This record gives sequence, structure tokens and C-alpha cells, in this order.
Amino acid sequence: MPREVTSFSNALVKQARGLRDKKNRKREGWFLAEGLRILTEARESGVLPEILFFSDSSHPLLRQIIDEVEAAGGEAIATSADILHKISGKDNPQTVLGIFKAFDTALARLDRAAAPLWIVAQSLRDPGNIGTILRTGDAVGAGGLILIDDSADPFSVEAARASMGALFTQRIAQARWEEFIAWLRGGPGQLIGTSLKAMQDYQAARYDKPAFILVGNEQAGLPAAYEAECDLLVKMPMLGKADSLNAAVATAVMAYEVVNQWRRG
Amino acid sequence: MPREVTSFSNALVKQARGLRDKKNRKREGWFLAEGLRILTEARESGVLPEILFFSDSSHPLLRQIIDEVEAAGGEAIATSADILHKISGKDNPQTVLGIFKAFDTALARLDRAAAPLWIVAQSLRDPGNIGTILRTGDAVGAGGLILIDDSADPFSVEAARASMGALFTQRIAQARWEEFIAWLRGGPGQLIGTSLKAMQDYQAARYDKPAFILVGNEQAGLPAAYEAECDLLVKMPMLGKADSLNAAVATAVMAYEVVNQWRRG
Repeated sequence: MPREVTSFSNALVKQARGLRDKKNRKREGWFLAEGLRILTEARESGVLPEILFFSDSSHPLLRQIIDEVEAAGGEAIATSADILHKISGKDNPQTVLGIFKAFDTALARLDRAAAPLWIVAQSLRDPGNIGTILRTGDAVGAGGLILIDDSADPFSVEAARASMGALFTQRIAQARWEEFIAWLRGGPGQLIGTSLKAMQDYQAARYDKPAFILVGNEQAGLPAAYEAECDLLVKMPMLGKADSLNAAVATAVMAYEVVNQWRRG
Repeated sequence: MPREVTSFSNALVKQARGLRDKKNRKREGWFLAEGLRILTEARESGVLPEILFFSDSSHPLLRQIIDEVEAAGGEAIATSADILHKISGKDNPQTVLGIFKAFDTALARLDRAAAPLWIVAQSLRDPGNIGTILRTGDAVGAGGLILIDDSADPFSVEAARASMGALFTQRIAQARWEEFIAWLRGGPGQLIGTSLKAMQDYQAARYDKPAFILVGNEQAGLPAAYEAECDLLVKMPMLGKADSLNAAVATAVMAYEVVNQWRRG
């Protein structure tokens, strides 16, 4: 049976709230994800929260998750909308929120043969972009997202929210550039960068499996040395005054071109 | 000569700060946009701020904008990074910030013949999505963005920031659905919706000019009645577990398909 917590000073409430900070997530090895849709996605991917907070258990899917969390030895806690608001920091909090064990993001654990397409992002600053790229990765059948160098935290509440659950369906790895390149060159893989300096149109290139789409930092784009390492450097048409797209948008346009070529066979 | 303002209680500082709230923007008919890149984009589109705040005038492009703002009868105000922080609410404020007169967003003023492609978005909630869609619109050579029904404010700081200046290069209109449909059917135009219920693959359809890409609300997607009004209803491949993309991502993938078809002639 779920126990009830109604006090703002409850230790678990404080601990959960603390997970909005990256340093606490790092220390505890836990992260927060909100909303029935995202928790259902997690469950369908075989991932249950360690602790579940909910303010309304009337939804049958949520009741099922509560049962499974308890059967697995986790804790299900009935609480108020106010306390969920305190934990999540959102004005309109979801009626359910889970605390999950952070995943192992070692690059060595990634099996490149598991998918024809992977996304590699360098020094992304915006956790919303990371979540949006995970969501796109799921849609295009990518295996996961490899975060290079100093990246925003993929386990932040914002990234989990923007991913709409893809945080649980996509593999996530984190590595320095040198480590990534050593790993990449230890097997098959075409590294594809987009660049303003590229001569080749992104629709004129031919993409091989497994393809690794490399995206640069939101402000600076890819460092020249990283571009030089790419097997293909392509450009998307830019028909207006701007010379770049949002990082998550550019990733999606590129990924759909790769997938569309493969669909044509 | 720019005058100097160093007091947090200065009336213009307070007024500028107030523009972070939608109701103040509505009342004053002004909005805020930050950063030299965005202000340069505005200037190149023939738009100067009414008031310019800056903490560092060493950049030649900024000095040029200061001169032009003063020549046009506007005010240029030298101030501190702290005051810019207070106005923008950002931890790392830009060194320059402009107050602009809000544009007229009447649909009747839009000239559909001005561009082959237009983006129409219904009840978007996230100003970041609006800005990102404007930025994509610029990249694909769209004429502008038509915001339908109850939308987040395209003149919010977040939208201006995400647009990277496209707020000044794209036309923006706001209308209720009935008003938009009456306007649309008063001239040529193919209304293209994306839907999970669609049978036709988005690459199998043929797009005519002027094309109007219709995007739905982030949570609910397009209402059935709006889908029914579309001339074309298409679907993008979804190869994973998710059944949708981020609204700005879906818009971009759709818009690039339209533009790519036209590039092939």
C-alpha cells in the first residue's frame, strides 16, 4: 500500500526536490521525471522509478505503475499537488513524478550494431535541445545519443520533459572527443557533420550504416578539428538571412534525410 | 551622445524590465530583444529600437546602431551589466538590449504573393517553439508565421531569443481560425497538415505554391475540424516508440521536404 506524505519537511520530499540540482543528481545517482506519459514510456522500456510520488491515482495506467513499483521493492507515495509543485518547481505540476536511478553512460557499453543511426552532440548547453534530440532520435529509429565534451545534463528535469519519454527508449553515452573518436574508429561508422563551409548539399551525399550524425554547440558550431575528422561534411540549404538552424532542428532535418534515403532503398 | 543611467530605480529601467510581462507589452506596444546579433539582424531588416541599453560600446557594429538610433530620434543609454541583468532577468545578460515598437500583426496586411511558403501554427504554448519556428521559416525562405487562436506571445523575450533575429525578417500575423480560413480561401494557397491519421507519406505528396504548413498545439495537435479543412494531410515516418515530434522539429522537417521538392524543380 502506498504511504502518504503530506509534510513539506519530509526527508524524501526534500531529497526529491534537491534532484533539480545537477550536483545532487551526480551525488545521489538519481534523477527526476514527471508525468504519466513519460512514466508509461519508462515502464514500457522496462524501467521503473525507485520512488513514485503521486497526487491522484485514479488513472488505471498509474495504478498499474504503483503496483509494479511496490512489487519491485520501490516506494509509492501518495501526496498533494502542492508537494508535487514544490518538488518539480512547475506551476502546473503533473499528478505523478518518479525518481529514477541514473543510467550508466559509459561509451564502451554502447553496441553500435543495435541501430543503423546514432546522434552525436558536442557541448550542447540547452537541456531542452538534448531532450528534443532524444525525442527525434526515437522517431527516426536512432539507437541513442552520444554527448561529447561538456554537455548540459541529459538527466535534468528539462531534458526528461522535452524528451517526452525518449530518455528511456534511447541509449545515452557521454565521452570526451578523443575517447569517442577512438571508439568510433574501432568499428564501422560514417561520421557526418553539417557545416556552412561544406560544399556538398546534404541531399547529394549518400549515407552508409551505421551513420553517426554530429551536431555542434548551439553558439559556436563544430570546432574545425572536429569537422576535419568527419567522413562527410554537408550543408543544408539556407534560403533566408540566417546562416544556421536551431541545433535540435538541424539534427532532425539531417536525420530525416538519412532515413528517407534508406527508405527509398 | 548616449546618456548614462546607473540607477536601478530609473523610470526607463523599470519600464524596460516591465516588458518581460505580456500585459505590459500589450499596454505599451513595445517589446524587448537582446544581443548584438539580433539587433544587427533587426537593423539589416530596417528596424531600429526606440531605446537602446548597452553596457559596452566597443563593438563597431554596436557603435553604428547607437548612431543610427540617435539619428532616428531614439534614445541610446549607457548603463551597467547589473542593470542589463535586472532588465533581462538573465544570469549572463547580453551587452546590449533594445526596446522595439511591436509590429502590426493584422492578417489583412499579409501579402501571400511575397513568398512561396508560409507557416501557420495553432495555439502554440511555448514561446521558444515560436522563435525556433521563425528561425526555421527564415532558413527555408518562408514569408512568415501566422499564429492561430490562443498563442504564446511572439514578442516575448524567449521568442525573440530563440528566433535569433528572424522575428525581424519574418512577417508575423495573428488571427482566429475562422478569420484565417476566410482569408486563405480568398486567394491561392495549399493548406498542408501533418497528422498521425493521415494515409499519405509526406514525401509522396506534391506541394504547390503558395504552400501553407499548418502545425498544431504541442500537447493536443490539430483539432479534427482543422485537419478536415486541410487540402493535404500527410504523415512523417515515425520509426520508434514515440508517435510525435516536437512542434518546431515537425515544422522544420515538413518545410524542408517542401523546399527540397521545389529545388528539384
